[in-house]
Amino acid sequence: MKRYRIGIAGYGNLGKGVELAVAQNDDMELVGVFTRRDPSTVKTVTGAEVYSMNDAESMADKIDVMIICGGSATDLPKQTPELVKIFNVIDSFDTHARIPEHFSNVDKAAKESGHLAMISLGWDPGLFSLNRLYAESILPNGKSYTFWGKGVSQGHSDAIRRIEGVKRGIQYTVPIESAMDAVRSGSQPELTTRQKHLRECWVVAEDGADLVKIEESIKTMKNYFDEYDTTVNFISEEEFDKVHNRMNHGGFVMRSGFTGDGEKTHQMIEYSLKLDSNPEFTASVLICYARALCRLKAEGATGCKTAFDIAPAYLSPLSAEELRAKML
Amino acid sequence: MKRYRIGIAGYGNLGKGVELAVAQNDDMELVGVFTRRDPSTVKTVTGAEVYSMNDAESMADKIDVMIICGGSATDLPKQTPELVKIFNVIDSFDTHARIPEHFSNVDKAAKESGHLAMISLGWDPGLFSLNRLYAESILPNGKSYTFWGKGVSQGHSDAIRRIEGVKRGIQYTVPIESAMDAVRSGSQPELTTRQKHLRECWVVAEDGADLVKIEESIKTMKNYFDEYDTTVNFISEEEFDKVHNRMNHGGFVMRSGFTGDGEKTHQMIEYSLKLDSNPEFTASVLICYARALCRLKAEGATGCKTAFDIAPAYLSPLSAEELRAKML
Repeated sequence: MKRYRIGIAGYGNLGKGVELAVAQNDDMELVGVFTRRDPSTVKTVTGAEVYSMNDAESMADKIDVMIICGGSATDLPKQTPELVKIFNVIDSFDTHARIPEHFSNVDKAAKESGHLAMISLGWDPGLFSLNRLYAESILPNGKSYTFWGKGVSQGHSDAIRRIEGVKRGIQYTVPIESAMDAVRSGSQPELTTRQKHLRECWVVAEDGADLVKIEESIKTMKNYFDEYDTTVNFISEEEFDKVHNRMNHGGFVMRSGFTGDGEKTHQMIEYSLKLDSNPEFTASVLICYARALCRLKAEGATGCKTAFDIAPAYLSPLSAEELRAKML
Repeated sequence: MKRYRIGIAGYGNLGKGVELAVAQNDDMELVGVFTRRDPSTVKTVTGAEVYSMNDAESMADKIDVMIICGGSATDLPKQTPELVKIFNVIDSFDTHARIPEHFSNVDKAAKESGHLAMISLGWDPGLFSLNRLYAESILPNGKSYTFWGKGVSQGHSDAIRRIEGVKRGIQYTVPIESAMDAVRSGSQPELTTRQKHLRECWVVAEDGADLVKIEESIKTMKNYFDEYDTTVNFISEEEFDKVHNRMNHGGFVMRSGFTGDGEKTHQMIEYSLKLDSNPEFTASVLICYARALCRLKAEGATGCKTAFDIAPAYLSPLSAEELRAKML
């Protein structure tokens, strides 16, 4: 069997997830992990080789796809257009508002170098985007809703930890069940930010910190918490480490639409994820798009693509005949 | 705006659904309905023109896609390979076991005539198939489940109506909630046919019919009911007409998988439909694939395709730029 040769650029939670996902797919092999740190300080989960990012270029002919596992704020806008000059690449760029700009930068660099890139893969953007597209194309007369959670928001957890007197902190985004039920009923409600999600915070305070002030600082924080109903719970560091050590997440994409004449015939499409590990699941999405990338590249494709551009059959290790016989 | 010119071959519930779906899409226009009946006896919902199927060939240059709305048992295996000699075609062929054979017949005829065909579209096969493919590609270490209902099974309703003494009859397939919850828990149960679905029958008996015998005949019917827990309810014709006049359906596609090493990290993907009208929803799927067909044909594609072969972006009236900006 031909095996697709994968490189990982950046070795945090997502990079580790990709390493584990490669091991679940017989048609994939991991060439190595590339890091900006001193490679001798990085120990991989499965014993994969670690190289300096500076040595990546010299290994260009050994890698079919480089999966870039940096953050969207500062890493990916720089790394993806740079690395696509050397490799075919995949990233999980998730700053929705900046996707058109990122796409344009990556597309230009990819076309110049003759490589193929796929950006903004994972579950949102990614699988949730696909479900929005399919559902809105099928039910043009309707309304779409996305709910996230219950799950950890890294950005909101970081925001809590920047408050004075906070030693440890984590934030869960919680979808409001009654709002989801209203959507399922076909009433197509207009939902405010506050009506869709709760924010649930768990905080370990420094000794002697002003708890009232911490709670107030969280609840009134602009853009992060002020538009939500937020609960703040103070707990011991021991409990924090025991209970709040997971990276679970998930969410729901819903489309409520009407077919026929008028609004009598309700049609409801719902897609949901319940994930014990957000980074491992995201990594699993990236890896099956790596398979698609290799196949499309073999057909001569270059430039930048998103999940919208990839025919589903490219994702599966099965042949077209097997898919029609077993899965259609 | 360029409008795609649609023809409908066969005017039952699905054909009516397609007629209504065309009206919901600004980039579509309905050329007419083609029937094997006397056209003067067919009255369309929106006033669309009705033609004899015998006149279809003379209108070949007026129709971009012919949507074939016949049944899978006898109509489509014959009609789709015939009509693809004249038109680009779409069908909803849903006899899963015979898809490879149907694909092969349609592909050959389409390639010979230079037309493009898409077969087995709708929700199962169709959207459910897509979800099986995406989910299994992402989570190779896992188990997939499909549940149908609650909804009307035409085949099982027909079977009831063939029993002596039955005047009217309808059968609902009901997914068993506890089985779905077991799947969601991550326990990956092995479920027998009986453990997944119930069959619920509503019957109007002829005057003087032997109700005990009817119930026994239904419950023991080979292939249809004998492997299920089945309930049979006798009701008046008045109640039957009032309550059991809808074509609702739906179902669930679930994938329970594990990422990482071992089976500790559970990842759950679930897709569900709750449909007030099965034929109108199926028609809405066919119509957005008609858009995809026209675009792919303009790129030079011929032969037979399924949902697996179509990149999602082709389904939407929005441009690639709009999709990335609004929906990714």
